[in-house]
Amino acid sequence: MNPPSHPADAPALTYRDAGVDIDAGNEAVRRIRNLVAKTHRPEQEGLDGLGGFAGLMALPAGFAEPVLVSCTDGVGTKLLVAIALDRHDTVGVDLVAMCVNDLLVTGAQPLFLLDYIATGRVRPELVESLVRGVVDGCVQAGASLLGGETAELPGMYQDGHYDLAAFAVGVVDRARVRGPQAVRAGDIAIGLRSSGLHSNGYSLARKALLSPEHAGLSLDAALPGGAGETVGDALLEPTRIYAPAFSALRSLDARVAPAEQALRGAAHITGGGLLENPQRALADSLAVELDLTRVPLPPIITCISDQGVAPAELRRTFNCGLGMILYVAPEQRAPALTALERAGEAPIELGRVVPRESPSAPQVRFAGE
Amino acid sequence: MNPPSHPADAPALTYRDAGVDIDAGNEAVRRIRNLVAKTHRPEQEGLDGLGGFAGLMALPAGFAEPVLVSCTDGVGTKLLVAIALDRHDTVGVDLVAMCVNDLLVTGAQPLFLLDYIATGRVRPELVESLVRGVVDGCVQAGASLLGGETAELPGMYQDGHYDLAAFAVGVVDRARVRGPQAVRAGDIAIGLRSSGLHSNGYSLARKALLSPEHAGLSLDAALPGGAGETVGDALLEPTRIYAPAFSALRSLDARVAPAEQALRGAAHITGGGLLENPQRALADSLAVELDLTRVPLPPIITCISDQGVAPAELRRTFNCGLGMILYVAPEQRAPALTALERAGEAPIELGRVVPRESPSAPQVRFAGE
Repeated sequence: MNPPSHPADAPALTYRDAGVDIDAGNEAVRRIRNLVAKTHRPEQEGLDGLGGFAGLMALPAGFAEPVLVSCTDGVGTKLLVAIALDRHDTVGVDLVAMCVNDLLVTGAQPLFLLDYIATGRVRPELVESLVRGVVDGCVQAGASLLGGETAELPGMYQDGHYDLAAFAVGVVDRARVRGPQAVRAGDIAIGLRSSGLHSNGYSLARKALLSPEHAGLSLDAALPGGAGETVGDALLEPTRIYAPAFSALRSLDARVAPAEQALRGAAHITGGGLLENPQRALADSLAVELDLTRVPLPPIITCISDQGVAPAELRRTFNCGLGMILYVAPEQRAPALTALERAGEAPIELGRVVPRESPSAPQVRFAGE
Repeated sequence: MNPPSHPADAPALTYRDAGVDIDAGNEAVRRIRNLVAKTHRPEQEGLDGLGGFAGLMALPAGFAEPVLVSCTDGVGTKLLVAIALDRHDTVGVDLVAMCVNDLLVTGAQPLFLLDYIATGRVRPELVESLVRGVVDGCVQAGASLLGGETAELPGMYQDGHYDLAAFAVGVVDRARVRGPQAVRAGDIAIGLRSSGLHSNGYSLARKALLSPEHAGLSLDAALPGGAGETVGDALLEPTRIYAPAFSALRSLDARVAPAEQALRGAAHITGGGLLENPQRALADSLAVELDLTRVPLPPIITCISDQGVAPAELRRTFNCGLGMILYVAPEQRAPALTALERAGEAPIELGRVVPRESPSAPQVRFAGE
C-alpha cells in the first residue's frame, strides 16, 4: 500500500493509546516461556518452534487405532475468589483439572493443553502467576502446555478481572474407549474424594457463605467446622487432578484385553453435581445405587447447606465430597482398589450398577432414601 | 453424605437465586445440537457420544507420521462491535478463522474445533446465534465442532457482554510440516487478500473511527470511501478463512515429495500486522521484500490512517489488506497461482525471500521505502 497520509491536524494515535500494550504482552510471554518448558513431552522433540503459529506434537507410540479425545472448560466464578484474595497461582490448577478430569473418564491419556487468558489490561506478573498454576496442573496431568493466548480486551473486563479457559487433548485406543458402551450391571461404583468444591457452584457458594443475608462470612474468617483454614482458603482449594489414579488403572488394564479391563467407565462430578453426572457414564438401561453415608461431607459443604440449600439442590450443584466415580468390573475389584491406593487415593466403595427399573426411573439412587 | 439440615429460619437458597440458570443452559444446548451436526466428519463415525464427557474423533487415513497441530485464539474487542449492533451470528466465523488460519500455515489439515462462550447470563437465543457463526466457520474450514462450553458467570461480565475463545486441532505428516525450516531464499511471497480488519486492532480501530476526539463516526454512518456499507458493516465484516486456498495447495503438493512442494511456508497476518508476522515463517538468516503498492488498501484502513495513525503503527496493528502471505517454491509458481485462483483467490505476487543482510537487519522490507 502507499504510506497512509498523516494530516497535521489529527493527533497521533497508537495502539497503546487505545489501551493495548503489545510490549506488556511480550514481557508476559518472556516470563512464561521458562515455566512452560517444564511441561515438555518427548513427542515434541524435533517439532518445537516449527510452524511458528501453532503448537506441534507427535502421537505417542503403541496405539493400534488412536482416537483423539478433546474437551474445554473454564474455572467459573471461583476466579472472583482468587481476585478478591489477590491470589492467582492456583486457579490455573483448577483450569487444567476441569479439562483433564473430563478427558480421563474416556480412558484417554492426556497429551497437551492450551490456555486462554483474557483480561482488560495485561499485567505480566498476573499472567505469570496464572500460567504458573496452569503449568503446575499440566505437570500433575502429564500434559504438555502446547500453546496459549493472552488477550488484552480493554472495555470488556473490569480492571483486575480476567477469565480463563483451557482446552485439552488426549489419546486412547478405539477398543479401550471407556463409557456408557462399556459399563455393565454389576459393576462396582468406586468414589474418589474431592478436595472441596473443586470448580463448580461458586456463585451459590459465595452467596451462601459471603452475602450478608446469609452466612455473611469474610474470606479471612475461620471456616466454621473446618480445621483452622479460612473461608478464603477453603474456597480457593485447588481442584484435584485424577491423572495419577487413572494412569494406575491404565497400567493395570494394559495387561489385559479391552473386554477384561478393570475400568469400564467413570463420571467426573462436575457441573450438575451428584444428581446429573453419575449417569453420564451409564447406558439408559442402567442405574447406579450410591451409599453416600460412606462419604465424609466437607465442612464447606455443611456450611453451605446450613444456609438453607435443600439436599437436592446441594447435590445438583456440588460434588459433595466425591470428585470422581469409577465403574469397575467386579472381578477386578481387588487389583483396582490396590492400584488406586498405590496412586495415593482413598477409594470409597459406593454401591453397584443395576438394571434401571423403567425408562422413567431415576438413574442415580441414594441408598437409604 | 447424610441429608444436610435445613434450618427453618434460613431462607431457601438455590443455584438460580445465585444467578445461574441450569435450565437456560440446557435450552441453549438443545438449540445448538442440530447446528453442530452440520460439521460432523466421517472420523467421528461410531464414536459419537462415547466417553460422554468429551468429544472423540479418529485420525484421517493416509498419514505416515501424523503430527497434531493446535492453537487457540479469541475475537478480541471486535465483540464490542457485535454487541453494540446486537448482531451475533458472524463473530463465530471470526473465532474459527483466527484459529484455523494459524493452523493452516503449518501445512495442517483442520480436524476439529471447540468453542468457549462466557457470559454473565445465558440467553439461549444469543448462544444459538454465536454457535451459528462458529458452525458456519467450521463448515468453511472443513472442521468438526467437536465440543464446547457455555459458561454462565454472573458478576464477571456486564449484562449483554460475552467473550469467545476457540481451540483448533489439525494434522500434518511430519515430513510436510511447513514453516521456517522449509522456506528458502528465492521463494516467492504471494499475498492473499483480507476481507477488512479481520479480528485484530479493534481497540485502535474503534477509537480512531468512533471516538468523538477522532472521526466520531456512528456505526450506522456510511463508511467514508466505502461502497455504501456502514461503518458497523465494515467493522463486523467476517474474517476470511483460507482453508480452501490451502486445501488446493495441499492437493497440488500431495503429488510430489515434501522437498518438491509448492508451499514452503506461510504467515497469517494476525496480531502484530505486516510488521511482525511475515518473518514468523522465516529462518533468522532470511528476509522478505514486499511490494505493497500492489495491494489495494481497504477503505476502512484509509479511514483509520486519516485519524493520525502513523504508517508503522498501522502496519504493526492491522493486516493492511493482506490476510495471508504464502512462501512458494519458484519452480512451482505457475501451478500454485492456478490452484489458488481455482480456489477463488486473487493472489498477489509481493516479492521474494532473500538472504538477510545482517543479524540486526529487519526481516521484512517494503519495496520503495
